Amino acid sequence: MNAPLQPTTGLPVVAMVGGGQLSRMTHQAAIALGQSLRVLAADPTESAALVAADVQLGDHRELADLRRLAEGATVVTFDHEHVPTEHLRALEAAGHRVAPGPAALVHAQDKLVLRRALAEAGEPQPAWAEVSTVHQVATFADEVGWPVVLKTPRGGYDGKGVFVIDGPDEAADLLEQHGTLLAEERVPMARELAAQVARSPFGQVAVWPVVETVQRDGVCNEVYAPAPGLSDELATAAQELAVRIADRLGVVGMLAVELFQTAEGIVVNELAMRPHNSGHWTIEGARTSQFEQHVRAVLDYPLGSTAMTAPVVVMANVLGGATADADWAGPSLDERVHHLMAHWPDVKLHWYGKGQRRGRKLGHVTALGEDLAEVRARAVAAARYLADGVVDPAFAFDEEH
Amino acid sequence: MNAPLQPTTGLPVVAMVGGGQLSRMTHQAAIALGQSLRVLAADPTESAALVAADVQLGDHRELADLRRLAEGATVVTFDHEHVPTEHLRALEAAGHRVAPGPAALVHAQDKLVLRRALAEAGEPQPAWAEVSTVHQVATFADEVGWPVVLKTPRGGYDGKGVFVIDGPDEAADLLEQHGTLLAEERVPMARELAAQVARSPFGQVAVWPVVETVQRDGVCNEVYAPAPGLSDELATAAQELAVRIADRLGVVGMLAVELFQTAEGIVVNELAMRPHNSGHWTIEGARTSQFEQHVRAVLDYPLGSTAMTAPVVVMANVLGGATADADWAGPSLDERVHHLMAHWPDVKLHWYGKGQRRGRKLGHVTALGEDLAEVRARAVAAARYLADGVVDPAFAFDEEH
Repeated sequence: MNAPLQPTTGLPVVAMVGGGQLSRMTHQAAIALGQSLRVLAADPTESAALVAADVQLGDHRELADLRRLAEGATVVTFDHEHVPTEHLRALEAAGHRVAPGPAALVHAQDKLVLRRALAEAGEPQPAWAEVSTVHQVATFADEVGWPVVLKTPRGGYDGKGVFVIDGPDEAADLLEQHGTLLAEERVPMARELAAQVARSPFGQVAVWPVVETVQRDGVCNEVYAPAPGLSDELATAAQELAVRIADRLGVVGMLAVELFQTAEGIVVNELAMRPHNSGHWTIEGARTSQFEQHVRAVLDYPLGSTAMTAPVVVMANVLGGATADADWAGPSLDERVHHLMAHWPDVKLHWYGKGQRRGRKLGHVTALGEDLAEVRARAVAAARYLADGVVDPAFAFDEEH
Repeated sequence: MNAPLQPTTGLPVVAMVGGGQLSRMTHQAAIALGQSLRVLAADPTESAALVAADVQLGDHRELADLRRLAEGATVVTFDHEHVPTEHLRALEAAGHRVAPGPAALVHAQDKLVLRRALAEAGEPQPAWAEVSTVHQVATFADEVGWPVVLKTPRGGYDGKGVFVIDGPDEAADLLEQHGTLLAEERVPMARELAAQVARSPFGQVAVWPVVETVQRDGVCNEVYAPAPGLSDELATAAQELAVRIADRLGVVGMLAVELFQTAEGIVVNELAMRPHNSGHWTIEGARTSQFEQHVRAVLDYPLGSTAMTAPVVVMANVLGGATADADWAGPSLDERVHHLMAHWPDVKLHWYGKGQRRGRKLGHVTALGEDLAEVRARAVAAARYLADGVVDPAFAFDEEH
């Protein structure tokens, strides 16, 4: 099959399944490369559908919709992991390029598959077991102690599908509901890290500095780049781990390896094979962003420099808060954006264009500088003001423009 | 008239007249602000029309098309200066916001109007005269000497509409063809500079470091930021001049003041009231790009930091060259992009998506670093390779990936 090309330039065409903010920011980055992302969105008001020229409405679970998307594209990639593996195999069988391919992607789709693969590779991970009976859970807990973490192998994200249980009784309902689960020890972690790597079909890899990620209620909330106080030794180990995984699994595109840091070192929590929240800081904070790099990688273009543009970068998510409530009587979003820009002229805003709802990822802000405490204070205060209308006393301001 | 707002966010809507690369890059920047630029393009294959979601096809000289564009927008702005003033007045009369307004924009549309305004303001500019007869040209030349520069007051750009003549005979044809012309002394300039400033309706202004621009055949070819060897005194004078002009003319949005540097100081060449080629370096080279700043300014949002992100930034245009010829037998655009990325992993590419043609602005590249000679060598070599397929010996490479 000849790969379809753009009529004006003869450049290749990238299609992305999913119309969320990752797709939106990928389109934004792709524009510089002479690209216009082709997007499969479920709804015309999705984040990427609002800004991209080539939007197809459809369902990522429907093979016919995926085929239609692939027809006009050189390569098909993803802003989430929810496309059924059999559909991806069908696309490949029809001669379409899929990046990452189904054999790699399944490790980001199915946590049991990931655990088995990492065990085979001898990579560090939490103690784990595949469980489908209460007895198996209890036996596993005898080894690792309570509480035990139960996870649905598929479909979980942002803390969904993860259950911390204190005894076997709590397992019964979950097993009945979900069938087979992944049981993991509750890792005595000091903090969470993420190592991001891009890999091209040619096998080139590029890694960014390892970051610290701070979750709130299972959702990524802040990212510090580079991870403060991380030893060079451990940072290198995390980067090498990410590269080994990308190589071994044959990842094409971005790979985010979410890690737990413990007293002993690092263990792999899970993988994402796409641009990831832990890499949003790279838009301003690195010479090449994860979004540009993802496009380069899936097109088998050589990868860009991952050098940081400032000593310290902090990304803070804006999750729908008080300002998303129907009875919010404070400043409108437009006014809050106004205030944010007035008070933090060097904080960079990324607003995803979505309707506001409690807990929803609505945007993020990035601050850059020299000193983590100072940079973090700015980013967090700006994000909190956008989300909750809360004015940090350190940044108090009057209502005048 | 209530300003139309985005249905998902309640944020305002920016419409831009013109579908060129300035509009394309403005859309790209606007995405981060929760925006999706509404674009009036003449053709669906125009640079911005290829990447924006909200494209209206129409003619910027047709009031009906402009009205249709304005209907859905909070503010109407421009990627060129070619909209007739009377149409802009009609939009304003209908209650639409136009930024910059016609009273300001006319100074970027009509070089005679500009010269009169600068004279009134006492700002430095070349000696000039309005001429409509050969006798007037000769009289002017008696004052300033030959050669004399004749310019069409309206419609010129990228060197078009500019004529250097060595005697009165050459003026006759031009006057017959164009009627009234602007005559200017040929300034004994050392080099060209540009001072960029953004101004909001509120009156806030933000200036970037003054840059040196290098033209080839009247077209901007390279930009060095900051202008090398420019004294602090002259840099400040140029910035203050740009701010005074923006204030006096009531500019809203971006203003680029093109300057000639002479032995005596600086004089104003011309103005652009929109994002401008001399500011493309700000995408990676400044904390806030001219494109983001233009959107902020026309929405009356507070302006962003203009701090540089590296000591030296060089932008080089890619003008259609040998590779645009029908008989080009070397590497395709896609292959050249491939090679560029392999050899300059930290050079940033901006490709406009247009069909290739000799002399056409097809894209630009930006390099950042510490040392001008080194940074410039990279940027220029990358741009030349893209345009002409010429491999700079300093960056020779084999054909392997």
